[in-house]
Amino acid sequence: MTLKLFPIFSIFAICSLCSGQSFRLNPIISPEVHPDKRVTFRLRAPNAESVELSGQFQNVNRQMQQREDGIWTVTLGPIKPDLYPYHFEVDGIAMNDPNNQHLFPNEGFKASLLDVPSDEGSIYAQKDVPHGKVSYHFYDSEIVQENRSFIVYTPPGYERSDESYPVFYLVSGTTDTEETFFKVGKANFILDNLIAVGKAKPMIIVMPYGNMRVGTPRPHTPEAALMYDRFAEVLMQEIVPYVESNYRTINERSSRAIAGFSRGGGQSLFTGFKYIDDFAHIGSYSAYLTPEVFETYFGPLLSDPQKTSQRLETLWLGVGESDFLYKPAVDFMDYLEAKGIERETLITEGGHTWMNARHYLYETAQRFFQ
Amino acid sequence: MTLKLFPIFSIFAICSLCSGQSFRLNPIISPEVHPDKRVTFRLRAPNAESVELSGQFQNVNRQMQQREDGIWTVTLGPIKPDLYPYHFEVDGIAMNDPNNQHLFPNEGFKASLLDVPSDEGSIYAQKDVPHGKVSYHFYDSEIVQENRSFIVYTPPGYERSDESYPVFYLVSGTTDTEETFFKVGKANFILDNLIAVGKAKPMIIVMPYGNMRVGTPRPHTPEAALMYDRFAEVLMQEIVPYVESNYRTINERSSRAIAGFSRGGGQSLFTGFKYIDDFAHIGSYSAYLTPEVFETYFGPLLSDPQKTSQRLETLWLGVGESDFLYKPAVDFMDYLEAKGIERETLITEGGHTWMNARHYLYETAQRFFQ
Repeated sequence: MTLKLFPIFSIFAICSLCSGQSFRLNPIISPEVHPDKRVTFRLRAPNAESVELSGQFQNVNRQMQQREDGIWTVTLGPIKPDLYPYHFEVDGIAMNDPNNQHLFPNEGFKASLLDVPSDEGSIYAQKDVPHGKVSYHFYDSEIVQENRSFIVYTPPGYERSDESYPVFYLVSGTTDTEETFFKVGKANFILDNLIAVGKAKPMIIVMPYGNMRVGTPRPHTPEAALMYDRFAEVLMQEIVPYVESNYRTINERSSRAIAGFSRGGGQSLFTGFKYIDDFAHIGSYSAYLTPEVFETYFGPLLSDPQKTSQRLETLWLGVGESDFLYKPAVDFMDYLEAKGIERETLITEGGHTWMNARHYLYETAQRFFQ
Repeated sequence: MTLKLFPIFSIFAICSLCSGQSFRLNPIISPEVHPDKRVTFRLRAPNAESVELSGQFQNVNRQMQQREDGIWTVTLGPIKPDLYPYHFEVDGIAMNDPNNQHLFPNEGFKASLLDVPSDEGSIYAQKDVPHGKVSYHFYDSEIVQENRSFIVYTPPGYERSDESYPVFYLVSGTTDTEETFFKVGKANFILDNLIAVGKAKPMIIVMPYGNMRVGTPRPHTPEAALMYDRFAEVLMQEIVPYVESNYRTINERSSRAIAGFSRGGGQSLFTGFKYIDDFAHIGSYSAYLTPEVFETYFGPLLSDPQKTSQRLETLWLGVGESDFLYKPAVDFMDYLEAKGIERETLITEGGHTWMNARHYLYETAQRFFQ
């Protein structure tokens, strides 16, 4: 049987009959990563007629096989080292893996996380290096009229120094929450690891909640610009002032960066261009603006592209070649180049995934504030 | 159909065809709390033969009914205002609610959280009061030999003051994680609300991870004491020194408290009695020690019960009358009284639940450091 809701009762009760043995009786281990990077997934579902595995390490769902004891299982791979979302489909119903405590924070779907570690040490792993801390802030948004939260990474040693730090605003995608760049993006460990080897400047990272409660329309419509603008308003009026008065921040444009994934990339591009007096570093992960939006809102930046390029110390855009947004993202890269705006671009393998988002974060964190 | 793993693709893709409308197409709202405190649960599961609702607001599972569109539904209540764990059982398989982003952090089961708000304002609600922040720390435990995390609540205004604060160490139960007293226990909001009305002293709360990797044996066996002692070792050698050198803490016994729920209550009692020179406040939520363990390890405290009572500024024990640990918990209360150790006790309704754990936290936070 699958563990029920009240195991804290029954397990404790059962264990009051046992002595010294582990509290998990016949636990199911899933996922199990083997030394050769093959991975076994397991789910106890004796009554199911079909169990499939859906994961971003494969292109199509894999049918799992039922053993005699009611546990469905499949072994795949070797799988390329990375941190992947996956879920089970049990008779057509999507569910996360009940035996894996690592969950994907999201408002639209439930997924679990598979970590296939790299032999060289994954860029996002918790390693034996000094660690920063990750703090949840709670506030009542006057603009959105609801209780909200944002998350702040402070680098190792922040508490014991009196130094001030640059700030990187990092925005997640559609249906993600403010937790996603922490729990899935692993922004804290990526930065810990980069800072430990001197590849990134010690910096503060602020992860806001990007859902503006006004939908996610096409990036080139006036509605999209309104949503982006509302995000910019919340960031500039509610979050940046709080951060700059509660943390030791360097309050100048060269020490402010903004980047994001998917919808958060569009919000970052819009906010960065609109508030170019406040941000010298912009990153776009698997996102874009259309020429129409750019010219409507940021036309003046095109009148002196050399000056705009000088002001933007970093303008970095990355996309995967199988991303469903590949074409508009590359079109935007080309558009900026045609207009004489200097930018750095990266085309990688893969799609519109958090594996790519983490990789782009790793790349941009090394460029900001240098 | 239930939302699949890749909705960030398809939703974004679908929404590139729409304009201005919400990104969630026909979202399922679950749970839906009605004004009269009845609650409707929904799950899209067109292929399921049976869907049951299991929740700690009821004693037995409730069968849900399938509508024509494949959505299973049940409406219950009115339900007494509180924050409850629940899950669905789909053809016998336990799963959390895919349409509810509020999850119960746990290593042994998957549950979602139902919040039935109180008209007077729940003790754990995010209200319009000054908020503290909640920080995740990461470190490499030499004692347990693994990467670990603990969580620290700092009260409102901590950053802007140079005051020092008392520290409350708060430990969760078997199969819980360091996140459970944050995400389910709502320790931060309970303290924010108490501090706002002057009912609790501003304090720091430290939430360690209580799994010592040595099982959870019976509280009266030598193995249990070993596990408790290992917890005490990790706390006193790794966590307390870090907290006291990285936060502004009052480093004296009158300003240190320890309490916990279930296994964490046993760990707190053991640690508090063992390190009575370091802790003046102890709380036990739905937990106990046996006379055998107490006398084996803390016999000297019984030789001068009046002195012990004076040193323990708070010794608070609470349990629910339908808790499966009710009898040993009450036996321990009686044992202490018989030995002349002063303690305050609270017997409430309810069982071995987080509804009670939150209530006990609310009670003890008002007593510590007063």
